[in-house]
Amino acid sequence: MNPRINPGDTIGILGSGQLGRMLAMAAARLGLRTHIYAPDRGPALDVCAQATIASYEDEEALAAFAASVVVVSYEFENVPASTAAFLAARRAVRPGPKALATTQDRLTEKAFLNASGIPTAPFAAVDDLAGLQAAVESLGLPSILKTRRFGYDGKGQVMLRDASDLAQAFEALGMQPAILEGLVPFTREVSVIGARSTQGAFAAWDVCENEHTHHILSRTLVPARLKAETAQAAIDMTGRIAEALDYVGVIAVEMFLVEDTTGGETRERLIVNEIAPRVHNSGHWTIDGSVTSQFEQHVRAICGWPLGSPRAHGRIDMRNLIGADADHWHELLEQPGLCLHLYGKHEARPGRKMGHTTRVLDENEPFTEDPVN
Amino acid sequence: MNPRINPGDTIGILGSGQLGRMLAMAAARLGLRTHIYAPDRGPALDVCAQATIASYEDEEALAAFAASVVVVSYEFENVPASTAAFLAARRAVRPGPKALATTQDRLTEKAFLNASGIPTAPFAAVDDLAGLQAAVESLGLPSILKTRRFGYDGKGQVMLRDASDLAQAFEALGMQPAILEGLVPFTREVSVIGARSTQGAFAAWDVCENEHTHHILSRTLVPARLKAETAQAAIDMTGRIAEALDYVGVIAVEMFLVEDTTGGETRERLIVNEIAPRVHNSGHWTIDGSVTSQFEQHVRAICGWPLGSPRAHGRIDMRNLIGADADHWHELLEQPGLCLHLYGKHEARPGRKMGHTTRVLDENEPFTEDPVN
Repeated sequence: MNPRINPGDTIGILGSGQLGRMLAMAAARLGLRTHIYAPDRGPALDVCAQATIASYEDEEALAAFAASVVVVSYEFENVPASTAAFLAARRAVRPGPKALATTQDRLTEKAFLNASGIPTAPFAAVDDLAGLQAAVESLGLPSILKTRRFGYDGKGQVMLRDASDLAQAFEALGMQPAILEGLVPFTREVSVIGARSTQGAFAAWDVCENEHTHHILSRTLVPARLKAETAQAAIDMTGRIAEALDYVGVIAVEMFLVEDTTGGETRERLIVNEIAPRVHNSGHWTIDGSVTSQFEQHVRAICGWPLGSPRAHGRIDMRNLIGADADHWHELLEQPGLCLHLYGKHEARPGRKMGHTTRVLDENEPFTEDPVN
Repeated sequence: MNPRINPGDTIGILGSGQLGRMLAMAAARLGLRTHIYAPDRGPALDVCAQATIASYEDEEALAAFAASVVVVSYEFENVPASTAAFLAARRAVRPGPKALATTQDRLTEKAFLNASGIPTAPFAAVDDLAGLQAAVESLGLPSILKTRRFGYDGKGQVMLRDASDLAQAFEALGMQPAILEGLVPFTREVSVIGARSTQGAFAAWDVCENEHTHHILSRTLVPARLKAETAQAAIDMTGRIAEALDYVGVIAVEMFLVEDTTGGETRERLIVNEIAPRVHNSGHWTIDGSVTSQFEQHVRAICGWPLGSPRAHGRIDMRNLIGADADHWHELLEQPGLCLHLYGKHEARPGRKMGHTTRVLDENEPFTEDPVN
């Protein structure tokens, strides 16, 4: 399906969280209306033209949703495969089913990456306790046991340090199909946010350098402190992944930087950790810091429109506001040059992403180490 | 009234056009909800959390609207005085009634400006044909006859070139109270977009240089090509006007630049043409070209929050898309580095503002004369 989409048309987004919210606002800038479909009322509902609150299994609601929109996209990769298939039979779903199927399952994703010549951490499938024991013998300890599906922000994973922990760890994950990953001695985490158009054009922003606290992204610096050839390699790798997935939309690829200093000279190597088939938290700075935001780029791509320029306005310091961080909104508004975004969530639960701040730094302004903006 | 406003609260906006739409999106970025009140369905309805379609005389609807919001603002200055008064008795209305009353009437506005020591074109009140004849004798011809109220984009005004035209011209304007303005031999039109907070802080963006076609803004260049001291004088003048009006919110002041070259040296002089007590078309570039957009600044101000930085990301070339200009949206999306905004209006009538484009220029990139982006 390759619909001809015009300003004034309505696009459909699955999910009502902050990503759906920022997608709906980007669509509105381009004269498009947004129909949000989600099982529960989230902050995207405050800025969309139309909304359906129904389960992902409600075929009547899904059919009406599909009939009301010209293209369907989503804010998260855990859309049930049956929902995606139901919608894809009626409307273009972008990114397509292949991207969803590949990235929903850590094992499928890593196998796909290796088959495409992209390095990952060593891994082994784990279907039962015997399989876990065999995997540990092959990869060694410490290593990380992760559920194959539905993990995010460190959920659904456990670090294995001791061979006596195995049964308990497997039980802690619910004895579901899992993957064991060998530990990679990385020095930094980076991500590439790129986009691929329906015509196969690819554009990426500068590489992002990410810091996590309790497995949740806390800070993104742009451009990442990498050698120029390493940054280019990261972007090229992302373009190859997007092409191999026949991808349409914004894609985020998280990578580990491994530094090898044997022989006195530092060599940088990249290992892909994870693919997100959607707009990504480490790309939120593009709203304030780039000619085209990742949200607008995603909308352009899924509509079959030309991609926009990913040029940055300067170096960037983006911070997440997690839980009670957002209580400091008034102090943040007072900081000169800081852009504040709040997602309109009612309750600031611990670990919950409530907003973010972006600072576009002047030419010679250093990144500060100050943890509060 | 000085309400304590928090993220999560709902602000009220009168008017459902593109300015209300961009205000609602800016409010959403800051975690605020927006309730739009308007007599008819406009493009702001696609991005607001709540909407009331009712006349400005419907006191029941106005009371319910006031009860649902923490502060009221508006996207246009022609809010009926009785509506503003009704709402102001219930909620803070920002900018306040003084700003509305002063700027709704060209005669009151010019008298206020002169009383504040701000130069304007020479003018005279016209209440009837005899008054028009007397005014023409005093100001000479050519001069411009304008209705005192409800004029915009060149509507409600007529150029007088010949003393025999007077009766016909006064009739053409509906024989309503009018003002005669002497012609100012200006060389450029500029505007200052500034904002004043509830604490009296004032911040302004770089001065905008504006080109009009058929009385409608067609292009804005930033910074305006002015001597540094003239630009500073324009900003200072705007700050003084805002203070004299006890203003809260974004204010736009349109000025004429008059160049005096007697004696070989060019001296620049500014004459205020008009005050808009609201966000302004010549400030649309701030969405893509500045740390804080005029829409966010207005929301910060009316909420009693600190003002944001008006720093620009570079020199700016903003163009309006009028009527059929917007049909070229696909070509505009293809232009590298161009930010496209479409307002979601259904019908591209001639003279209707359908969208705009913004280009942030590189350091050494010249302004082009190319009329299409």
